Amino acid sequence: MTSSQNPVLIVGSVALDSVETPSGRVDNALGGAATYASTATSLFAPVRLVGVVGEDFPKEYLDFLRERNIDLSGLQIVQGGKTFRWKGDYLGDLNQAETHDTQLGVFEHFEPHLPEAYKHTPWVFLANIHPELQLQTLNSVEKPRLVVCDTMNLWLNLARESVLKVLSRADVAVMNDGEARMLLEEDNLIRAGRELLKRGPRVVIIKKGEHGALMFSGDDIFSAPSFPVEEVVDPTGAGDSFAGAFIGYLAQQNDDSLGAMRRALVYGACVASATVSDFSLGALAKLQREEVERRFQTVKKMAAF
Amino acid sequence: MTSSQNPVLIVGSVALDSVETPSGRVDNALGGAATYASTATSLFAPVRLVGVVGEDFPKEYLDFLRERNIDLSGLQIVQGGKTFRWKGDYLGDLNQAETHDTQLGVFEHFEPHLPEAYKHTPWVFLANIHPELQLQTLNSVEKPRLVVCDTMNLWLNLARESVLKVLSRADVAVMNDGEARMLLEEDNLIRAGRELLKRGPRVVIIKKGEHGALMFSGDDIFSAPSFPVEEVVDPTGAGDSFAGAFIGYLAQQNDDSLGAMRRALVYGACVASATVSDFSLGALAKLQREEVERRFQTVKKMAAF
Repeated sequence: MTSSQNPVLIVGSVALDSVETPSGRVDNALGGAATYASTATSLFAPVRLVGVVGEDFPKEYLDFLRERNIDLSGLQIVQGGKTFRWKGDYLGDLNQAETHDTQLGVFEHFEPHLPEAYKHTPWVFLANIHPELQLQTLNSVEKPRLVVCDTMNLWLNLARESVLKVLSRADVAVMNDGEARMLLEEDNLIRAGRELLKRGPRVVIIKKGEHGALMFSGDDIFSAPSFPVEEVVDPTGAGDSFAGAFIGYLAQQNDDSLGAMRRALVYGACVASATVSDFSLGALAKLQREEVERRFQTVKKMAAF
Repeated sequence: MTSSQNPVLIVGSVALDSVETPSGRVDNALGGAATYASTATSLFAPVRLVGVVGEDFPKEYLDFLRERNIDLSGLQIVQGGKTFRWKGDYLGDLNQAETHDTQLGVFEHFEPHLPEAYKHTPWVFLANIHPELQLQTLNSVEKPRLVVCDTMNLWLNLARESVLKVLSRADVAVMNDGEARMLLEEDNLIRAGRELLKRGPRVVIIKKGEHGALMFSGDDIFSAPSFPVEEVVDPTGAGDSFAGAFIGYLAQQNDDSLGAMRRALVYGACVASATVSDFSLGALAKLQREEVERRFQTVKKMAAF
């Protein structure tokens, strides 16, 4: 189902995660925004990954990504370096991670260098990473057709101005409801979405977890339900795989119209619903395109009136 | 647009509300579940109201209800009695009222007596009131075609068994997400909805405020967006007018199929979106059927993909 004509460039974190949820725990499992996003995108289109790991990054994880048509020539492997590690839990609230420990490792001095072949990638996803690194990556790509950016609450606190700079250069901004409220100090999501449009992007997507997502463009609002999930095992990576599937579908369709984006958003929600049903990439890695299609049709039936 | 063929019987509280929100305050304003619900229903179908007020209930409020094709022959007016009064605020959280004072007044000894003409009403809405009074009312109606019930968190604490009894006899149970979670001690709304179906009703509707609503029936799930509201002035009565419009539309269409219920639910959300834009019945009383239709078409466009 993928097309070699429309690759997606993805920059973001590649990590080893230790996570505890009411369903159990994993240690040093494959994680990171770019990892989830790339795996989701690869269900639809080939990926060019930009990121960094240390010498300690397991070879089996590299093999897993390569086998999914994810180009790793932009993934720096720092000899003697340590891969970024995140430790947290969702014991209090399944919608909000509590961070216990963050070891930046090779991320501390990371500068994205794009292989020559990456510099003309039409579809670009700036996944969660320091916004200055998102900007550096963006500066290295020549006239991308569509730039989608994600962020996280950490950067809204530490580097608000840089986040706003990224927003001003993105075509599509994706964030969750809490982040939108925090960035704009605005509780009402309709007002927050419209306010975000004024910061630059043509399209704003606000993710609401189990409540679906809202997409704003001009005066247009799209409200998408989420795929019904009876048990969330681990919410890590839901947002990343949502956005990864979103841009992957657009690249595959070679279509950046609002109509395509509405469908892309529902595909994103369907892929995210699989991600949360297991720890790490346990479920996402097994997800087949046929199952994504089945979920898409379920959501279509759920939303019809 | 209304039809005299399909009246809706509504039992519930008629009250004088004193409410404070971030937008301001009102004192002794027209309120009560049956008031909001009847006014909403009357946009679609004639109403037969069952309730009680005291001698202090302003005549202008009675006139207002009568003018809307709401039959008040089932509204007891207790001479020397005091109308039910509720005082609360939404200062901390616009989704959750904080009650300051409740004066039961004539409600303390109220027993619903249905006028003879009411006893063959096909469409019945048991709006928020003590669940034993909902049951008494239901016992007085002969073979209704469709029974919709609402409740509130207070009764889940004070009279849980009676609430479950009402559920077991209703065709459609309506509650908000917080009430569903509380009644079933179940955080996941998909599981909560399916669990509620096991308690008797053929259809379960879980309202999620700004996030819309979910409707469950058998294996079928419908997810409806809410109409986008940029400013909530006073959320009081949103749920009551939602349910009132829901059953009103079904009565008008003379249709209790799931397809009609999907549309009815969206009409309910559209009417509720008007209710919250002013205090008391300020906005709901002025709402025209044409504006409801315009909002319905807006939501239809918002949900299409």
